[in-house]
Parts: sequence; structure tokens; C-alpha cells
Amino acid sequence: MVKNFKLIIEYDGGAYHGWQRQKNERTIQADIEQALGAMTGQAPKLIGSGRTDAGVHALGQAAHFRCDTDLTADVFLRGLNSLLSDDIVIHSCRRVDDGFHARYDAKSKLYQYRILNRDRPKAVGRQYVWFIRQALDCRVMRACLAHLIGRHDFKTFQGSGSPRSSTIRTIMRADLSESEQGALVIDLEADGFLKYMVRSIVGTVVEAGRGKITPLEFKSILASGDRSRAGATAPAKGLFLVAVTY
Amino acid sequence: MVKNFKLIIEYDGGAYHGWQRQKNERTIQADIEQALGAMTGQAPKLIGSGRTDAGVHALGQAAHFRCDTDLTADVFLRGLNSLLSDDIVIHSCRRVDDGFHARYDAKSKLYQYRILNRDRPKAVGRQYVWFIRQALDCRVMRACLAHLIGRHDFKTFQGSGSPRSSTIRTIMRADLSESEQGALVIDLEADGFLKYMVRSIVGTVVEAGRGKITPLEFKSILASGDRSRAGATAPAKGLFLVAVTY
Repeated sequence: MVKNFKLIIEYDGGAYHGWQRQKNERTIQADIEQALGAMTGQAPKLIGSGRTDAGVHALGQAAHFRCDTDLTADVFLRGLNSLLSDDIVIHSCRRVDDGFHARYDAKSKLYQYRILNRDRPKAVGRQYVWFIRQALDCRVMRACLAHLIGRHDFKTFQGSGSPRSSTIRTIMRADLSESEQGALVIDLEADGFLKYMVRSIVGTVVEAGRGKITPLEFKSILASGDRSRAGATAPAKGLFLVAVTY
Repeated sequence: MVKNFKLIIEYDGGAYHGWQRQKNERTIQADIEQALGAMTGQAPKLIGSGRTDAGVHALGQAAHFRCDTDLTADVFLRGLNSLLSDDIVIHSCRRVDDGFHARYDAKSKLYQYRILNRDRPKAVGRQYVWFIRQALDCRVMRACLAHLIGRHDFKTFQGSGSPRSSTIRTIMRADLSESEQGALVIDLEADGFLKYMVRSIVGTVVEAGRGKITPLEFKSILASGDRSRAGATAPAKGLFLVAVTY
């Protein structure tokens, strides 16, 4: 009987060319599909909630695969974790309705971007933050983020390649929090994201934090749909896909 | 004029064979001495507060070097950070009294050991924790740690090699704290540590947390001076030298 399974996946993307299967490149999807193949003798396709780019991490990526198997969800959970590299941890595997689709059914996604903003970089954990020496103005950055809330055309923040038929998305959450020693965390939750959208937003918000863009200019950049007005794309290593809501 | 400089150093020890200079191995001391040599054209010796073993990390290792130089502390700070690999960050460099000695003058050292105790390992940051699946009894572990406080002979917890003339040390602090999702942190502060002492203590305390040793047995193991009764040495990757007090 064909069954449908949902996975929740954490990964350190530092050594990977992103989620999506590619010829001759190490990707998260390909690694997990290979393990599924080894366990089932079949070639189940793993459908993620969406791609993550090369070097981007995930704490709670979601995915599903369909397979005609007698193996239970718990056997998949243990088997995958024993077969996969330590870069990938499957946190849960459970059977879901035949109709469940990890991409089409996703209601929202939460991304987190981590910045270290202080005089000196760090050694321990540096692979998970964007280090910025110049002091950033958090108030200005928050004012920019506030302009993102709601339903907008995010064409300004769409990377080239993989264009979507619609670039309209709804952002429900756009926060900046500060913790100890210059650690800044930007949380962005939306019903969907365009390619490079979070990193392009973060790059532009950081320009504002540096004093190069005012919040009003940020609002006009968002409205312009003109990618050339956006800031540089923030580095992949600071970005985490935290959770997908269904 | 010969000047004396003190450094505070953070490092990710994962790729290093420890602090101490060795032939044909990459070590923290050797990397920093090489950078000092490049900056001064001399060969200053860098004296650390003590060695850390292969794979152990530091957030605040202290060290000093003497050098006949016109370079200022600030020039050393910037120069070293630009020459060193990203695994090593110098957090401060300042001139100190000629008599200051990073090892002999150290009053106490604080080490931290990080454990992840839950059903599932993690991918992100796994290089900095000891993952233990079996549930540990934190109350029992705390009761063991309490027996360490004070002046004791720690011969039980001394690794082979590098024996010290005295194995008596004073532990001022031995705490276990729990944070989110099974993250356990053991803090140990003492006037000095023997080789492998923290990792040997942690390995034994974990045995107690697993129910294999009672706190009273732990106390007797400490008193016995018999290394064969100590638990296995905990992995290096969970250990951090946090700070050295002078």
C-alpha cells in the first residue's frame, strides 16, 4: 500500500549545495533520497516545503515522500538518522493523509537571520552568523522591517532565476531582537518566499542600519519593484529555515 | 625596549591538536607564534595560562609574550586578527607589567562543559556538544558535583602523561544548569586543573547521571585516588576554557 510520510529535518547547510537535487553536487534532498532508496529498494521522491540555497541551514524544514512500503514511520526515523551524515538530523517522521503535500499545503514559513554586530568576530559558532563590525542602528532596522508587514509585491527582493508567476506575498512577522554581545536576530514569517528574498531583505535592512537608507526610502524601494535598488544579498551562512506551518 | 603583552584568545579547537606547539601538528600556540614572528621579525614565545587538549575550545584563554618592539598593543591586536585563521580570534591585547606571567599568575580558571541530553542529536552546533541520548538524572549529577567543592587531591581524575608534582587543587565552583531542549552545562572553576581533569570529572558525573554511580560512590572514587574507578574521559568537543582570572 502506498503511504505518505512527513519529515521534519534539521541540517547544517555549510557543506551542501542547497536543498535541491543537482547533478554532481551534494544536496540535502539527494542525501535523504539516497538513504530512502537504501531503506526501501525503491526511489521515493522527497518533496520539500521549498528549496533552501547553498549554505543555508534549517532547524525545521518539512518534506514528504510517498512509498509502497511496510516500514513504519518510526523505522524510517531511526533508519534515516543512522544512514545520514551528522549534518542532517531527522527530528520526526509520521504518516500523513495521502493528500498531504509539503510544498502546496504550507501555510507559512518562518526564517531567522543571525548577525553578529560588534567590534570583534567570534571563532566558536562563526559558521552560523554574518559578522558586521560597523555599529548598526536597530531602531532604524526595526522601522524598515515594519514596512514589510502585510501583503506586498516583493519583486524588489527576488533574485534572478526561478521567477515566480506572482511575486505577491504576505509577511506576518518581521522582528529584530538583540541578545547578548551584539547578537542580532531577524525573524521573518510569510505565506511564502521568493528566491533570495530573506537574504535580499536582510541585506537592504542592514544598509539602513548602516545609515545609508532611511526607513522611508526602504518603503519606496519595496514599492519600486526595482531589484537594483535593493542592498547586497546577505551571506547564506546566517540564514535558518526555522519552521513550516501547515 | 622589551615589553610584555597579555592576550585574551578565543578559538574553535576542532581542527587543532591543542594549544601546545608540536612538531608537524597544527596548534593554537604555534599559529599565534608564527603570526607574532611575521609581525616582529623575531620569534617571541607565547606562554598560555595552560594547555588545552586537541579539540578543546576556548572563549577566553589568556597568554603573554615578551618582545623588544615599537609596535603597540593595538597594532598587535589588529595584526594578529588579520593574520590568523578564522578559528582564532584575539579579543584583547594589552601591555602588562614586566613580571606578569600567564601561567604562574593565574588565580583560577573557569571551564564549561556542554552536553546535549535528549532523544535526538542536533545538526547545527553539534561540533560543540557531547550528545547523550539516555536521560541523565540532573539531581544526582549535582550531588556529585557538590562533593568536588573545596580542596582535594584530584589524582583520580588526572590523565596519564604530564604528571604534576602535586595533584591537590581547590575547586570553587561546580554547577550544572539546564537550558532549553536538553542542553546541560557544567561549570567548573578551580585554582588549577590537572591533565584531562575536567573531562574525566564530567565522564564520571555522567556515569552517575546514568544511574551507575551514586553520589556517595562518587565521593569515594574522588577520595580513592584510583584512576581506574573514574568514568571514561568525556569528548573534547564539549569543553570550553571560558576565562582565566588573575
